Amino acid sequence: MAISISRPSVSLPQQFLYSINPQKFSSISVIRKKQNFLRCASSDSAPPPTRQEMSLSVGMYLIPHPNKVEKGGEDAFFVSSDDGEVLVVADGVSGWAEKNVDPALFSRELVANVSSLVGNVEVNDDPRILIKGAHAATSSIGSATVIVSVFKNGILKIGSVGDCGLRVIRKGQMIFSTFPLEHYFDCPYQLSSESVTQTYLDAIVSTVNLQVGDTIVMGSDGLFDNIFDQEIVSVVTTNDDVSNAAKALADLARNHSVDTKFDSPFSLEARARGFDVPWWKKVFGMKFTGGKLDDITVIVGKVKTT
Amino acid sequence: MAISISRPSVSLPQQFLYSINPQKFSSISVIRKKQNFLRCASSDSAPPPTRQEMSLSVGMYLIPHPNKVEKGGEDAFFVSSDDGEVLVVADGVSGWAEKNVDPALFSRELVANVSSLVGNVEVNDDPRILIKGAHAATSSIGSATVIVSVFKNGILKIGSVGDCGLRVIRKGQMIFSTFPLEHYFDCPYQLSSESVTQTYLDAIVSTVNLQVGDTIVMGSDGLFDNIFDQEIVSVVTTNDDVSNAAKALADLARNHSVDTKFDSPFSLEARARGFDVPWWKKVFGMKFTGGKLDDITVIVGKVKTT
Repeated sequence: MAISISRPSVSLPQQFLYSINPQKFSSISVIRKKQNFLRCASSDSAPPPTRQEMSLSVGMYLIPHPNKVEKGGEDAFFVSSDDGEVLVVADGVSGWAEKNVDPALFSRELVANVSSLVGNVEVNDDPRILIKGAHAATSSIGSATVIVSVFKNGILKIGSVGDCGLRVIRKGQMIFSTFPLEHYFDCPYQLSSESVTQTYLDAIVSTVNLQVGDTIVMGSDGLFDNIFDQEIVSVVTTNDDVSNAAKALADLARNHSVDTKFDSPFSLEARARGFDVPWWKKVFGMKFTGGKLDDITVIVGKVKTT
Repeated sequence: MAISISRPSVSLPQQFLYSINPQKFSSISVIRKKQNFLRCASSDSAPPPTRQEMSLSVGMYLIPHPNKVEKGGEDAFFVSSDDGEVLVVADGVSGWAEKNVDPALFSRELVANVSSLVGNVEVNDDPRILIKGAHAATSSIGSATVIVSVFKNGILKIGSVGDCGLRVIRKGQMIFSTFPLEHYFDCPYQLSSESVTQTYLDAIVSTVNLQVGDTIVMGSDGLFDNIFDQEIVSVVTTNDDVSNAAKALADLARNHSVDTKFDSPFSLEARARGFDVPWWKKVFGMKFTGGKLDDITVIVGKVKTT
């Protein structure tokens, strides 16, 4: 049944539209059903802090691609504590090096432009407007993926073009994640100096209400291609200090990135998209594994009472 | 480095904090790098519709648990086209049946209460306020997980307590997903008639800006425990009609739920949490597989120009 907005409201809370005959099925006794609900923990009855009472502690860590150590890699990031917390990560698209263009120039300029716009009243704490203004002000040749988040009054606003990412962890569980947008495998949406480019209109914009104790993990694809979400949850729940957590995440991602046997998120995705070792290697039971060598940028933010 | 909000703004776009020596690594030639960026598709240069010009087409489908067909299962849902689109799914916690309480009563009352609140000016299009009011107005014994979304002016606001879920698909890619919150495996956060309960304060609240052509898939855990995100993307991109898409998703989830060999999201999660077949079965190479028999509720919404 299709309901358009022009029709009157339809309420079907007790209706089911289709039924089938009961079928035999096997249940596994070791799986607990939801019968233990009465033993579930209760919510904290203390009133939560007001949104104005929240702020962020932030730790950062960047490990450049091994071949780009001297120049500091091609990722760029910015952390502001003016007028709410603004976090930015940009990742210069490496293919420009083949055209004798330093891919770091565009990402760094983009991030610097965002930093210049922070506090501008016309930005109005809107990540998409920050992206729009920062992109418009670039003069370098190149392109970059970018993620911008603004935390103010307990609300985190996120805008992302491409495959930089952000996760939120609450009480040991992931409660929010961005998703990468790409044209095809390993070719993300990106802001560019070319006339053919994505724009702020292509940014995926989302918002999540945060609570004291929540942890934000933001980074370039060098982090998320090499480390699983469950590993991120594990690291941030065992590292209270945000700087230690950022370093631990970057180190783990780096270790995975140079481990040719590790079945990373990147290699899983590659195989799912049909990229694998040649057939004659498959005959010997081989498959494409390993992490992805890349610049790894990590920003960890923890929500605290001011 | 930890930066608190009280410090002046810090800009480190060109700084790297740590470096290691270049290491040898093997690359797989079949993996395309990002060098093909110039061939990436451009963004549409036509101006996007204004937010006020967007609305939803909605299709729904519910398949009750095979043992609960006569009563219509214990899920409840509601779709409103008044004052913006409000979508609600609630899932009655089945453990109450052991106490001779019909688990459907609480979920149905909760959803009916949300429907009564739609359009109330004090609600202000806020899913969390809808959840608060609907919970406060319940008189039935029981408990339920619930997800409420409000679509207005191009913005989708979502509030969720427990493991009902919502996904957004744009141009064949998932761009947004909720995450289940639970106390432990298969015991989700839930609103309850008991004094020990989660409340609207436990709702995960998020917002995503939608575009024309985006597809929302909302449902109970009976959908998301039995069907992978990639399958959801595949189904909605091959079914333009929202009713057909909702039916196809429910049917696929139902087929998986009765397939004891299918390695479902539920069985993957169960094994990851340590629930598996006894050791002597593992000796024979067996493992816990199969879908999860449950009520399956699916709502599919597609953003269109009004």
